Amino acid sequence: MSVDWLELEKIARAWTYEAAGLIKKSLANPIHIEAKSNPDDLVTEVDRAIESFFYHKIDQTYPEHHFLGEEGIAEELNSLDGTVWIVDPIDGTMNFVHQKYNFAISVAVYHDGVGMVGLIYDVMNDELFHAVRDHGAYVNNEELVPVKERPLHESIIGLNAKWLVQEKNPFRNPLKALVRDVRSIRSYGSAALEIAYVAADRLDGYISVNLSPWDYAAGIVLLEEVGCKASTFRGEHLNYLQKSTVIVGKPRLHKEMVSSYVGEEL
Amino acid sequence: MSVDWLELEKIARAWTYEAAGLIKKSLANPIHIEAKSNPDDLVTEVDRAIESFFYHKIDQTYPEHHFLGEEGIAEELNSLDGTVWIVDPIDGTMNFVHQKYNFAISVAVYHDGVGMVGLIYDVMNDELFHAVRDHGAYVNNEELVPVKERPLHESIIGLNAKWLVQEKNPFRNPLKALVRDVRSIRSYGSAALEIAYVAADRLDGYISVNLSPWDYAAGIVLLEEVGCKASTFRGEHLNYLQKSTVIVGKPRLHKEMVSSYVGEEL
Repeated sequence: MSVDWLELEKIARAWTYEAAGLIKKSLANPIHIEAKSNPDDLVTEVDRAIESFFYHKIDQTYPEHHFLGEEGIAEELNSLDGTVWIVDPIDGTMNFVHQKYNFAISVAVYHDGVGMVGLIYDVMNDELFHAVRDHGAYVNNEELVPVKERPLHESIIGLNAKWLVQEKNPFRNPLKALVRDVRSIRSYGSAALEIAYVAADRLDGYISVNLSPWDYAAGIVLLEEVGCKASTFRGEHLNYLQKSTVIVGKPRLHKEMVSSYVGEEL
Repeated sequence: MSVDWLELEKIARAWTYEAAGLIKKSLANPIHIEAKSNPDDLVTEVDRAIESFFYHKIDQTYPEHHFLGEEGIAEELNSLDGTVWIVDPIDGTMNFVHQKYNFAISVAVYHDGVGMVGLIYDVMNDELFHAVRDHGAYVNNEELVPVKERPLHESIIGLNAKWLVQEKNPFRNPLKALVRDVRSIRSYGSAALEIAYVAADRLDGYISVNLSPWDYAAGIVLLEEVGCKASTFRGEHLNYLQKSTVIVGKPRLHKEMVSSYVGEEL
């Protein structure tokens, strides 16, 4: 049965806004109140509640669809056959706990392995990035237009500085070389938002040594609509069923970062 | 003659909003249009126009006040005697050019070296941080309340990863040790905003190897209202008349970062 992806995006968007309302309610005061008990309990509780919210909405509305989420509410998936929702109820968990700010709901819908719908919603900034395959990518309904590439030495890359100092990170040296060569580095603490920022031309690229499918699945749908690339550090396709290295960016920059920096461990 | 600092803050705030309107007008399209010629020309032009806007407003309204700004429109200052306005027309220049996002107007008013008024306005997010000495610090008129400190290993620090890879940076090793030991690192590309985020408890601390007075002057006024500390890496007072290292944070964390990490070059 064929799916109307534009219609499905509208439904997913309504659920996302509803979930955002629930998350906001869970923050007693967005500015300065600390979590009362263990902050990790709080976030786990909210994460689970929001994942459960999506799982049940999807199960009721699309009983034949599959579900892949961070909190593991659904049974484990072994393939991307059929229609699969890939949900991160709160991407940027540490920001959620510490900052009550700069975290996102990330919802992707894939069909037979192809990204059809992607939604990344920055809850506190009320900024929605969305894309439907072949229908463009948008931020708050304003279309994102592919821009001219900058050379690597003028590029701004999203990357967490922790990767530069961890002895056990096999990519430490190539990443240090890259940080030296680009114009500057940003780090916002949410992979979903940082990938959305690449699509929105706020970053030229984004790199992480270790991401899960729900961290990047929605972002990839945005990137494809504006002509950006995504792969593992070796330049291979992301497989969506396990953790991996992830490098995204404008096409020439992506190619150069893979071939001259992170494609080989040093 | 005594100054009503609450009244002066209102005037400075009105000018800041007016300046923000001029900056927004200068961005033909906030999402995807590249600067037509040299991006550095554009930002210099807008920077100068906004600094000139503040300089003339201040000169007309408070002819006896002094002025210290990034673009050097006023004559050089050799002391902080009297009332001094310290203005960064656009803090986060690179963000302004590349992202059209995450930059701020920073306006501080000091009297005989004491910070009386601080305003940091995130233009595109419409988020105003402000403080008047002994009257508290606010984000969009919601008062910021000092929060409990976290231990260093649970803290999130603002720091640009570039400082970790530049061979000539004498603080490279202590900063790498700090990055290893804290919970995480963020980097937003605007010192003024990152210092405001410390005041707003979105970051526990912020560190830069090289800042100018207009990068931090307004932020310090915010920090003092919520009980945070600021100094050079050696723990000395910032002097506001030259560039220096800057480390800010919650009091215990600030002390530990100075004494155990950056207080001595390694």
